[in-house]
Amino acid sequence: MTDTPQLGDWIAAFDRALSYRDVSGVADLFHDECYWRDLLAFTWNIKTMEGRPEIVEMLSETLSHVAPRAWRVSGQAEIAGNTVSSWITFETAAGVCKGRLTLVDGKCHILMTALDDLHGHEEPRGRTRNKGLTHRADPHRRTWSELRHEETRRMGHEDQPYVLIVGGGQGGIALGARLRQLGVPALIVEKNARAGDSWRNRYRSLVLHDPVWYDHLPYLEFPENWPVFTPKDKLGDWLEAYANIFELEIWQSTSCDKASFDAENGLWTVEVTRDGKPVTLRPAQLVFATGAYGPPREIDIPGGEEFAGTLIHSSAYQSGEAFAGKTCAVIGAASSAHDVCVDLWEAGADVTMLQRSPSIVVRSETLMDLGFEIYSEDAVARGITVDVADMLAASVPFALFPDQQRALYQDIRKRDAAFYDRLAAAGFDFDFGEDDSGLMMKALRTASGYYIDVGASDLIANGEIKVISGADVVALTPDGLRLGDGQEVTADVVVACIGYQSMNEIVAGIVSPEVASAIGPCWGLGSGVRGDPGPWQGELRNMWKPTVAENLWFHGGNLALSRFYSRFLALQLKARMEGIKTPVYRRPDPVQSGL
Amino acid sequence: MTDTPQLGDWIAAFDRALSYRDVSGVADLFHDECYWRDLLAFTWNIKTMEGRPEIVEMLSETLSHVAPRAWRVSGQAEIAGNTVSSWITFETAAGVCKGRLTLVDGKCHILMTALDDLHGHEEPRGRTRNKGLTHRADPHRRTWSELRHEETRRMGHEDQPYVLIVGGGQGGIALGARLRQLGVPALIVEKNARAGDSWRNRYRSLVLHDPVWYDHLPYLEFPENWPVFTPKDKLGDWLEAYANIFELEIWQSTSCDKASFDAENGLWTVEVTRDGKPVTLRPAQLVFATGAYGPPREIDIPGGEEFAGTLIHSSAYQSGEAFAGKTCAVIGAASSAHDVCVDLWEAGADVTMLQRSPSIVVRSETLMDLGFEIYSEDAVARGITVDVADMLAASVPFALFPDQQRALYQDIRKRDAAFYDRLAAAGFDFDFGEDDSGLMMKALRTASGYYIDVGASDLIANGEIKVISGADVVALTPDGLRLGDGQEVTADVVVACIGYQSMNEIVAGIVSPEVASAIGPCWGLGSGVRGDPGPWQGELRNMWKPTVAENLWFHGGNLALSRFYSRFLALQLKARMEGIKTPVYRRPDPVQSGL
Repeated sequence: MTDTPQLGDWIAAFDRALSYRDVSGVADLFHDECYWRDLLAFTWNIKTMEGRPEIVEMLSETLSHVAPRAWRVSGQAEIAGNTVSSWITFETAAGVCKGRLTLVDGKCHILMTALDDLHGHEEPRGRTRNKGLTHRADPHRRTWSELRHEETRRMGHEDQPYVLIVGGGQGGIALGARLRQLGVPALIVEKNARAGDSWRNRYRSLVLHDPVWYDHLPYLEFPENWPVFTPKDKLGDWLEAYANIFELEIWQSTSCDKASFDAENGLWTVEVTRDGKPVTLRPAQLVFATGAYGPPREIDIPGGEEFAGTLIHSSAYQSGEAFAGKTCAVIGAASSAHDVCVDLWEAGADVTMLQRSPSIVVRSETLMDLGFEIYSEDAVARGITVDVADMLAASVPFALFPDQQRALYQDIRKRDAAFYDRLAAAGFDFDFGEDDSGLMMKALRTASGYYIDVGASDLIANGEIKVISGADVVALTPDGLRLGDGQEVTADVVVACIGYQSMNEIVAGIVSPEVASAIGPCWGLGSGVRGDPGPWQGELRNMWKPTVAENLWFHGGNLALSRFYSRFLALQLKARMEGIKTPVYRRPDPVQSGL
Repeated sequence: MTDTPQLGDWIAAFDRALSYRDVSGVADLFHDECYWRDLLAFTWNIKTMEGRPEIVEMLSETLSHVAPRAWRVSGQAEIAGNTVSSWITFETAAGVCKGRLTLVDGKCHILMTALDDLHGHEEPRGRTRNKGLTHRADPHRRTWSELRHEETRRMGHEDQPYVLIVGGGQGGIALGARLRQLGVPALIVEKNARAGDSWRNRYRSLVLHDPVWYDHLPYLEFPENWPVFTPKDKLGDWLEAYANIFELEIWQSTSCDKASFDAENGLWTVEVTRDGKPVTLRPAQLVFATGAYGPPREIDIPGGEEFAGTLIHSSAYQSGEAFAGKTCAVIGAASSAHDVCVDLWEAGADVTMLQRSPSIVVRSETLMDLGFEIYSEDAVARGITVDVADMLAASVPFALFPDQQRALYQDIRKRDAAFYDRLAAAGFDFDFGEDDSGLMMKALRTASGYYIDVGASDLIANGEIKVISGADVVALTPDGLRLGDGQEVTADVVVACIGYQSMNEIVAGIVSPEVASAIGPCWGLGSGVRGDPGPWQGELRNMWKPTVAENLWFHGGNLALSRFYSRFLALQLKARMEGIKTPVYRRPDPVQSGL
């Protein structure tokens, strides 16, 4: 450990002030502009306190029951000019915690604190892993496979899961694996026939746009010979193998139809249909892990009955095979629209992209070089494991993202100036977000409106894929589409890549519209830009943390977010199962009076 | 790097002498008692040169075409008294190599050299992994799953595998994974219905006796929450998932019936039966990976027609369930016999073990504590990855094993004196091998006659499982068995845990008895003890290296040996496929004149 006196002094002073419950003494250790991001450790919430007053308020409410102690600097301090950063560890009444501290001129600029393990319920791993064997003869021996079969047979019938997870994609599977390690009985219901089908069922040419170093699932990393960009079916197979390896209980071909919560006994009544037969489940906790998005947005264009061609939402698009030689209009200009355009072009269709609003486009190669510094082979070589990278990423408060990202996008625009010139010349309408903060901010704010270029942009620049930008589709016609400016677009096939509804729309269908609107939208930061109205939240809305609805949770995001936040969601569920007190600091208020 | 002048001087002198082809100058750098273990780098064989004359002989024959150069010390030197050890790297005409060097008083006592990668055919991994995606639109795009399905459809029909692997247990699967990474088309034929069934089909209570740190497969380690001792069905599921993840081509429910080699065109003609239908395959290379053992030894006891009860070989034993209340005799006293006895006892049978000769028994806990130092959680904490541990293990010449192991067994006998006293008092006949070198030496010499105690010994000591030692079964009788001393043993059930034939017996059935006897037995070191007759080989017979039969190979061993040696077998096969010269130093002579 390379300590610095500064760091040691700060931690000692912080520890002292906390132990004396001296909240203003704590506040004095922070700069005026300061951030404390907490993942469960203090708040049993995912919450960023911005500025001293919010820190004081939080500590005043939590300090007495959290009882933090034993603050230590761990590992080597990183010093850059007047800034010192370091990993830290500490304990609370509930568990062991870790975090990251950044001091500027000796005062705290950023503190991140995270619950790591619950006292008495530590996740078994390494030295504490199960033996898997009783080293003695036992006339009542039950073998591993007998116990597994018994568990599977009883699950959902004689035995009820403590947690029911709706959705068996990467979100449900990652959470299922975490819960199994923590000994929380969980059942995943998945509408498709096989684990991984949520990926297999997507369009033919889909390949992950994020690189392998960013995509690991918990506990089992992709091997070092795994391709950088995973094809969708290979990912489907990996998820299926993973679910098997981690002994997850999954009901395939099972839809979740209705759910209602009985606050009195703390149990949900959930009606599912498994292989066509109704089953009633009684879990204590219900997690919606139905994807980063809710249901597909409805295609709401007048004149549908007149249109003689094929009209589908991108979620139903499989392959361009049937459309060779056809004239195709693709509505939208985000990831799916680009991929669908390429797929149609490859199949030999005549393709026009109808761009409704500007998109953010970044070349994949550029983003890999500049945007994934901590998730890369270089990072691995420098000892930055995926767990370290996740903690590094989590230690930057969302409020500081835009500035950081703006700097990145200045580099990107410089490096790829010729590329952007060609796109502009082809009539493609791009920007870098309302505040020039780029693709990742857009993903966090609206989960839409961007494309990591893996080939479409070149076709657009060359005119192989035509673009009409500012296209306002007002009606379907017998031969195609009509735009707001009166322009007619001929089309045999229209693919509407118009996105998805918010996750809470799923809740409207399964629980009730009232509960869904009380919860309000999921995702988004409240940035005040289009698609992400304020007020500023500081964190993603309703994700991986308590919602206004008791015992109802949302889990989702790409592989990376599913990996990281599944741990914190699993800890929240485990604590509740064990009856550990989990006082939530600032549980959200109902968005409407529906609840 | 903590170098020592000694080490640097030695490597420089060695490099210089080799580059001048000064064989006697090289020999001068070695002690009189010295060992050079080579894994392909110099010999395209797995071979230990013992003493200066063997080193001189080997170098005289190989040096001109091997052309070794660029010898470097890598990592930190380890100094203990007058001994200095270090990892080394070098290159040959064929590839990059690594190894380990141990100097005593400045002269070489042990050198281990191993081929690591072939020039121009380096295994893609880390930075050189496949991208998995062409970053441009392509009207002739073939997706990953289309290519996979096409490959599977054509394999063995339009396309012939370069390597045919007989057996889809851990051996075949580990080798299959290595070959796929090296781009060698391979097909595995497996008689069972599912990958992993070779484990699932074993007796109900089987759990690995080796700990998880020793059992990893290549490329994908068991996760850190995997149990220490893997139950057989869980291992079966892991192998199945693994085969899927690494995209292996496996034909299930396929028997290998006949094979003959045409030396003229260098191809095998192999008749297999797949799902009941005959298929002829034409691979260049044929690998027998049918298990550490050959077929079960035949039960050759007179009087079988008179015996009214159940008589089975341990390989057919599944569970004691049907034998509750029955009187059971178990012939044998090695691992299977112990496990079968416990399983029968647990099921409520009356069990007698008929011990024919002394066994080596070691308590599992003791062996974990004292015998797996480099494969343990402690080793992981010290940075000894499984790959490092494998190279450490491989750098000890077999000739030095007995002394090393005798010291270990002195500790074991001291620590568990009370345990051994109880076993002796119960009439169980144990020893520690003819030369007291213990269990691992016995495994290497005869692959039989030992038991890692996970519960049976206690039942034996308590008399719950009866033992008749020195039991010479001469006949089956209507009611049971007769022993050589005239004693009659009543039995409703006889389980013959009498072991397996040598692997080359499989070859006798599939290729020809002549080829099998020319190859001679597999496994064993030629130690001159019972079951392992001399002359001394210095290495395991016929395993993972060229045999007397062209293009015919044996792969086998426990998970650890399958993991490590699969790399070297794969490199040998790859080199042959690419037409790289592979002059084998000291290919074995035919054991008989059969070939």
